[in-house]
Amino acid sequence: MVMVTAAVTNRRVILKRYVTGMLSEDDMEVVTAETPLPPADAGLAMLSEDDMEVVTAEAPLPPADAGLAAVLVKNLYISCDPYMRSRMTRHEVPSYVPDYVPGEVLTNYGVMKVISSGHPDFKAGDLVWGVTGWEEYTLIDNPESLSKINHPDLPLSYYTGVLGIAGLTAYAGFFEVCKPKKGEHVFVSTASGAVGQIVGQLAKITGCHVVGSAGSDEKVNLLKTKFGFDDAFNYKKEPDLDVALKRYFPKGIDIYFENVGGSTLDAVLPNMRLFGRIAACGMISQYNLDSPDGVHNLFYIITKRLRMEGFLVFDYFGMYRQFEEMAGYLKEGKVEYLQDIVEGLDAAPAALIRLYTSSNVGKQLVTIPRD
Amino acid sequence: MVMVTAAVTNRRVILKRYVTGMLSEDDMEVVTAETPLPPADAGLAMLSEDDMEVVTAEAPLPPADAGLAAVLVKNLYISCDPYMRSRMTRHEVPSYVPDYVPGEVLTNYGVMKVISSGHPDFKAGDLVWGVTGWEEYTLIDNPESLSKINHPDLPLSYYTGVLGIAGLTAYAGFFEVCKPKKGEHVFVSTASGAVGQIVGQLAKITGCHVVGSAGSDEKVNLLKTKFGFDDAFNYKKEPDLDVALKRYFPKGIDIYFENVGGSTLDAVLPNMRLFGRIAACGMISQYNLDSPDGVHNLFYIITKRLRMEGFLVFDYFGMYRQFEEMAGYLKEGKVEYLQDIVEGLDAAPAALIRLYTSSNVGKQLVTIPRD
Repeated sequence: MVMVTAAVTNRRVILKRYVTGMLSEDDMEVVTAETPLPPADAGLAMLSEDDMEVVTAEAPLPPADAGLAAVLVKNLYISCDPYMRSRMTRHEVPSYVPDYVPGEVLTNYGVMKVISSGHPDFKAGDLVWGVTGWEEYTLIDNPESLSKINHPDLPLSYYTGVLGIAGLTAYAGFFEVCKPKKGEHVFVSTASGAVGQIVGQLAKITGCHVVGSAGSDEKVNLLKTKFGFDDAFNYKKEPDLDVALKRYFPKGIDIYFENVGGSTLDAVLPNMRLFGRIAACGMISQYNLDSPDGVHNLFYIITKRLRMEGFLVFDYFGMYRQFEEMAGYLKEGKVEYLQDIVEGLDAAPAALIRLYTSSNVGKQLVTIPRD
Repeated sequence: MVMVTAAVTNRRVILKRYVTGMLSEDDMEVVTAETPLPPADAGLAMLSEDDMEVVTAEAPLPPADAGLAAVLVKNLYISCDPYMRSRMTRHEVPSYVPDYVPGEVLTNYGVMKVISSGHPDFKAGDLVWGVTGWEEYTLIDNPESLSKINHPDLPLSYYTGVLGIAGLTAYAGFFEVCKPKKGEHVFVSTASGAVGQIVGQLAKITGCHVVGSAGSDEKVNLLKTKFGFDDAFNYKKEPDLDVALKRYFPKGIDIYFENVGGSTLDAVLPNMRLFGRIAACGMISQYNLDSPDGVHNLFYIITKRLRMEGFLVFDYFGMYRQFEEMAGYLKEGKVEYLQDIVEGLDAAPAALIRLYTSSNVGKQLVTIPRD
């Protein structure tokens, strides 16, 4: 085996340019980069030949408390999430996450195997999840952002979703923001997506009546059979969403888990019940519009005394341990989880776009084969 | 003096027709009605000649617990409130208050003197406030909805505003919905109006930094001098409200007390600080539009983790006793209150319209002279 000493080839997905309008595959590019060696102060341990044909660093390890520790990982699964689109637009005022930079690799949550570690909490072979690059190998210079995989008996890929960001999003959004009560009526949009399918099942566990909307009959069927929603409908077949909502919620909606925005929100507002809650988690219908749609029915927020509250999962990391009851639900079969996995970085740009065309069935992610 | 035995003339303002577009005086009419005598079971006491030339009922009093008690009042002050416009539109789905009915008298909160009472809690001469008609005399058949005037040493008219609905709206909305903390930055729209002027002063009492917007330089001056706002601006002179808000809130807005809606809300959303709160109290810019404006910037609710919550004062009547600390503030001069009083029912339709043209300076109300 040849030891690479200066650089290693690294297949990666970069942003080609800031995006306007609908995201297309042309906005991204899959390139083979020469990843430079980790800097000498990254604290990477000397690799053995068993560590794959990757990289070496001959610098002595810095002391563990030097704050310079880095971790080199092989990316196993990367997550496709709707919010990535907004990071592809240049924001004059910084948003809650940094914009992607044209020419640089995309980043998002993933599941990784540690190849080499200069951080005392991690060692080669550890399975971790956290923010990484859309590439084969990533040097992570803030390893404290990584989490260990606590339930390796469940599919590793679950840590891109139901046991990771999507799961915690659903859990925190539903319980902390919606504050559901047994018997309440819950509407979930993009209900078969990564977050929606979990919200619906948590609502059922709570004793709520749950109806979901999705973009195909196949997904509607899944909602009713696999995920146990009380009912579901294909919004593409509903000429008038207001009429559809009145049909599925004759008494109105207590809780709307908002993943869509725009005209869906406009149709939901008049159908909310008094003192209803809207957890604003995402607005996927708006992400590819250069100018967002107007929402006209906000006056109902007053007349119906609604609470509409936005939230970001990043504010709820502190409840991850509590959230891990999810692993128990999965093992007991109380929560089902459906993934839509595509293989290889070359397929990653198209996989991301599937979110915005409603083509994914279940949590969209990409597996990066181990060469 | 002639005793009227069958009916009494009663000057009143009626809704002529359901209103579309901008409210005009033609939509209302001031008429002299023949108010029929109270029904025999209304329990009205025999009047003495001292009770003015009004009405008599010869029926014996029903027992106090018969539930049939009514109260005849002379209306002294009636309140003009923005929400009245929405009651002039026909709602297919009932709103939180009943629509007005063409041909019938307008109703709203007012201050009244009891002329005759069949209810054990009230007697002739009592000063009360509550919902009444836009007319000289009103027979109130649910006297339990009336409240006694507890602080007759303050101007009676204050019970149409700072000690009535507007005051309780400001108090509940600011403390219960906004949940302010000392040092936070508060923006109040229609800041010199009935509610806004109180919100601003409560915010100052709480130790917040408060900026208000209003529709004339005269009002802006009042906000800064009489009401103690830290700053204020004339929105009509601001070509770009976003720019204005960035000037007055370089660090952003923690609390927005929303009285306006539409494009103001759109400009506020990007200027909110993380975890900001929007108390949706009214949306006066929208009430005269047949189709409400679209609000485009709702995605900031997510990225900034905002809570937007609508409220109606009716849900907070239970805290009226606590709210009455307001009377103390007024007596001590800690809260100033400005009223815009017009005289006579003939002027009432125009007075109401002044709210929507931003012509009122302070709380708009109508005094009904005692003939």
